[in-house]
Amino acid sequence: MRPVEAELHPDVAPLAGLLGTWRGRGTGRYPTVEGFAYREELAFWHVGKPFLAYRQQTWSSEDGRPLHGEMGYWRAVGEGRLELVLAHPTGVTEVADGTVEDGVVEFASIAIGLTPTAKEVTRLERRFELEGDVLRYELRMAAVGRAVTVHLQAELSRA
Amino acid sequence: MRPVEAELHPDVAPLAGLLGTWRGRGTGRYPTVEGFAYREELAFWHVGKPFLAYRQQTWSSEDGRPLHGEMGYWRAVGEGRLELVLAHPTGVTEVADGTVEDGVVEFASIAIGLTPTAKEVTRLERRFELEGDVLRYELRMAAVGRAVTVHLQAELSRA
Repeated sequence: MRPVEAELHPDVAPLAGLLGTWRGRGTGRYPTVEGFAYREELAFWHVGKPFLAYRQQTWSSEDGRPLHGEMGYWRAVGEGRLELVLAHPTGVTEVADGTVEDGVVEFASIAIGLTPTAKEVTRLERRFELEGDVLRYELRMAAVGRAVTVHLQAELSRA
Repeated sequence: MRPVEAELHPDVAPLAGLLGTWRGRGTGRYPTVEGFAYREELAFWHVGKPFLAYRQQTWSSEDGRPLHGEMGYWRAVGEGRLELVLAHPTGVTEVADGTVEDGVVEFASIAIGLTPTAKEVTRLERRFELEGDVLRYELRMAAVGRAVTVHLQAELSRA
């Protein structure tokens, strides 16, 4: 919302390589939907506190229509431990805990909130790999009665 | 993240007056903290789907340091019913349902998620009043063992 002039909080130093804007492409699949490909933009920023703010948006590679989005915060709580809080426009909130080590971030959900009209999501697992100016992630999901399975895989480059 | 060119989804027409950026001032109080005053900026935008994306940031009026922020989505689910999903950098997620009528939006939480290190929040109630280019809100909260009480009140103008 304003230029970031704050110094990075030392607790988020292990995440500093994520700061900025990323663009790339991914693919999605799930037992209940047809496979799809997407363009993606995501951004991380900070305000000097021990968390990064995060937002993400995807668009169909086929016709450019907006697909998913999500926004929230990656909290650094010490000793390589992370906590994630996210809101999804599908009516889902996600609380996860995780770790960061050598550019690899892993999260597993510990609480998922659903609005009355949301489709049921019961577990989300995320793995991010940062290698310089390339960021890859995989998201595994259990939803609508299905077991945890790979849902999204993407590769992004620093914009 | 990109210029919005999509047409507004008809389901969010009752929220159209919120779109854009707002700036203003507010005050906070809670039985467990000293009263405080803040500057605030918040923004609503859309991608053509039946929800508005929302983000907010506040700064201390005293010394300009960042205070709170939150991000998420306001979902319009028909007949003046709304659903809210938010992430707070304090390690809290908020799922609420609510209504919009004549420029007044009211939400009450139905599920709150907490990360392992978050302070306990058990209920959030929000009331927004839109009058042309002025937006006022009040947030009531039950947290850390206290009953629901007024926590924040603010008035913002269209930026």
